[in-house]
Amino acid sequence: MLDRIYGERDRKRGPERTLLWLVSEVGEVSEVLIKGKSSGSSYEVELADALAWLLSFANVVGVDVEEAFLKRYGSGCPRCGSIPCICPER
Amino acid sequence: MLDRIYGERDRKRGPERTLLWLVSEVGEVSEVLIKGKSSGSSYEVELADALAWLLSFANVVGVDVEEAFLKRYGSGCPRCGSIPCICPER
Repeated sequence: MLDRIYGERDRKRGPERTLLWLVSEVGEVSEVLIKGKSSGSSYEVELADALAWLLSFANVVGVDVEEAFLKRYGSGCPRCGSIPCICPER
Repeated sequence: MLDRIYGERDRKRGPERTLLWLVSEVGEVSEVLIKGKSSGSSYEVELADALAWLLSFANVVGVDVEEAFLKRYGSGCPRCGSIPCICPER
């Protein structure tokens, strides 16, 4: 879906600027955290936007994030291998 | 799935430190971009990790990202309303 909306312009923009948009959106999530409602936005909107830019970036660099995610997390924590994770706290 | 692996420790860690982990993972995606293979990692791994921390953060602040994403992008670009997007380039 996102590729249909933004795919062509994402590829034209290229990975560097697309990644900077992702960084910018993560900044807007931070703004909701530190400013609350006076940020004028919400976690719903900013997390959706951050996810959209993450998916756009993945499209640009040719990665299927869903597949990569399931490969890495589909059978538990990639470090300890357990569900729930039993790694040292961090 | 991710909530079963990390939910309890994510909630214990809280939103601030969970968001800092997301920032850190986006940094690792940047590292793959600027260093390539000499980063010792890959887009697949780092984008999966960034997505995992985004989902962890959303869990901590009680947002269903899939729902928020579909609400915002499910019927086209949230700014211009079109598929594909016809906003001014950015």
